[in-house]
Amino acid sequence: MKLRIFADIAASEEAMSLLEQSVSDHQLLLPEKRTSSVLAQAEPDPQMLTADVVFGQPNPDFISRSESIRWIQISSAGFTRYDTPTFRELAERRQIQVSNSSSVYDEACAVHALSFMLAQARNLPESVGARMPHGTPSWNRLRYDVGLLRGETALMVGYGAIGRFLVKLLKPFEMNVMGYRRRERGDEEIPIVTLEQLDDALSRADHIINTLPDSPQTRHFFDEERLQAVKPGSVLYNVGRGTTVDQEALRKALTTGHLRAAWLDVTEPEPLPDGHPLLDTPNCFITPHTAGGHRGEDITLVTHFLNNLKRFTRDEELLDRIM
Amino acid sequence: MKLRIFADIAASEEAMSLLEQSVSDHQLLLPEKRTSSVLAQAEPDPQMLTADVVFGQPNPDFISRSESIRWIQISSAGFTRYDTPTFRELAERRQIQVSNSSSVYDEACAVHALSFMLAQARNLPESVGARMPHGTPSWNRLRYDVGLLRGETALMVGYGAIGRFLVKLLKPFEMNVMGYRRRERGDEEIPIVTLEQLDDALSRADHIINTLPDSPQTRHFFDEERLQAVKPGSVLYNVGRGTTVDQEALRKALTTGHLRAAWLDVTEPEPLPDGHPLLDTPNCFITPHTAGGHRGEDITLVTHFLNNLKRFTRDEELLDRIM
Repeated sequence: MKLRIFADIAASEEAMSLLEQSVSDHQLLLPEKRTSSVLAQAEPDPQMLTADVVFGQPNPDFISRSESIRWIQISSAGFTRYDTPTFRELAERRQIQVSNSSSVYDEACAVHALSFMLAQARNLPESVGARMPHGTPSWNRLRYDVGLLRGETALMVGYGAIGRFLVKLLKPFEMNVMGYRRRERGDEEIPIVTLEQLDDALSRADHIINTLPDSPQTRHFFDEERLQAVKPGSVLYNVGRGTTVDQEALRKALTTGHLRAAWLDVTEPEPLPDGHPLLDTPNCFITPHTAGGHRGEDITLVTHFLNNLKRFTRDEELLDRIM
Repeated sequence: MKLRIFADIAASEEAMSLLEQSVSDHQLLLPEKRTSSVLAQAEPDPQMLTADVVFGQPNPDFISRSESIRWIQISSAGFTRYDTPTFRELAERRQIQVSNSSSVYDEACAVHALSFMLAQARNLPESVGARMPHGTPSWNRLRYDVGLLRGETALMVGYGAIGRFLVKLLKPFEMNVMGYRRRERGDEEIPIVTLEQLDDALSRADHIINTLPDSPQTRHFFDEERLQAVKPGSVLYNVGRGTTVDQEALRKALTTGHLRAAWLDVTEPEPLPDGHPLLDTPNCFITPHTAGGHRGEDITLVTHFLNNLKRFTRDEELLDRIM
């Protein structure tokens, strides 16, 4: 079965040549100018309309104009722009399978989240570059007001691939780890709380790790009321999507000291514009949506697609299938 | 057996009252003004000369004037000032047992070292506070030139309590971990290299974690020649003692880019004086000897002493015994 594969991904020459060589049994269609980022929506390209398989971040409206597409491999973990009733209905009616690439980014996001947790626990923002004699009051604060994570409580808000990976990384720290997700599946490695139990869990957590995706249901999930429910002195980490946290409410919780700190890889919008209040909010540390990144990421992304291509041609269940 | 216990430690009122209550069967002797830091040598106090047990950082010369001391519990992990032929001879002749507190600080040092490794892997020094649109060249560098630790090689130089703890914390990262120590004991969880094999191991390690103590043998262990032996682009972490690294040679290795970065909790001297060359050396990140610290550390320290006191009164082998 010779497939027409349209691929528009941000990748190095090395990753592109891996893709080209590995799909030589099929016909590979490439845009003239490739997309610049794994997070950006691609420009419509007429070649896509004749493809069987699309790999990238295709415009969902454009897809509806194709009669041929049978499988879309989204190159990101987030799939907000496809998570609409219109698109879901289209995918179902035309029998288009849709998979994402969450397993390409889960490990990096979990490692990034742990780097945040440890930088906070050891107070690296204040300690790195601090010079003071041992035994002075400011030294005592840096030396004795830092933690080990051991015995502290972590709550994962949203419990999927990232959360599972983070649970593995946290195991040697012997923390109390629990998770919140909409529907418990029964195969989780940690206790899961329901929406009704969430406020109670928030009131007991020292570390709140938010991995929620963007959707109408998660928009401002952390609003002023929910942030009021968290334990005073706790820390919020966001490696999900910026829209899930009300930035004004977050600023307030940090300014009053109700939250000890926030470590954000995502914001609303991205990047934050000059003069945005979060930029000079105390104890607010922001990385520019780099949590999912890692050296060789594009090779991992292409390999993930190739694994799924093999499954697709054999009529097997796709990895990371979402529709 | 009622003991005279002289204790001079930097501790909170809570920790001091735990000590006082727990040794009420004995006689506790306290100095008028307690020492300010776990790292500082205490002022000589005449009460100490009549004690059976000394807990703190006593002046080794002063100890030779006591006829009564039978056990010294050093309140730090480092014991350089006692590690001399004169003092060892005194301890042996007078049958003074000496124990240190390495098990009080090992976990914190290991957690601190991992916080360094992850901050480096995720490039937090450059990423935190960086604002840029997705897909720009500078964003691509922050997103794709970061790591996961997985599959990379770590070499522990000095393999004791801190190293063992760090091996546990690193397990989920699936790194290749090896250690160097003077004498292999046979019970190590990781492959140990000898001094002859050290340069070869250094040439293969992506991460070099130095936990060497200060001693005449370790002084400038990392000199220009040894730093030349390390793999280009590797990272040096020091949570041992500052004297084990030649600061000039380190600066040179960082300036030429042979070392990718250095993360130091210890320097020579501490703190570094104004204008010291390491202060404006690129990719050199320094915390002020806070790696061993943690909330509740003084409680852990007192508890460690009390555990050993029980052992001492029962003639059992002391924990962390060094002489």
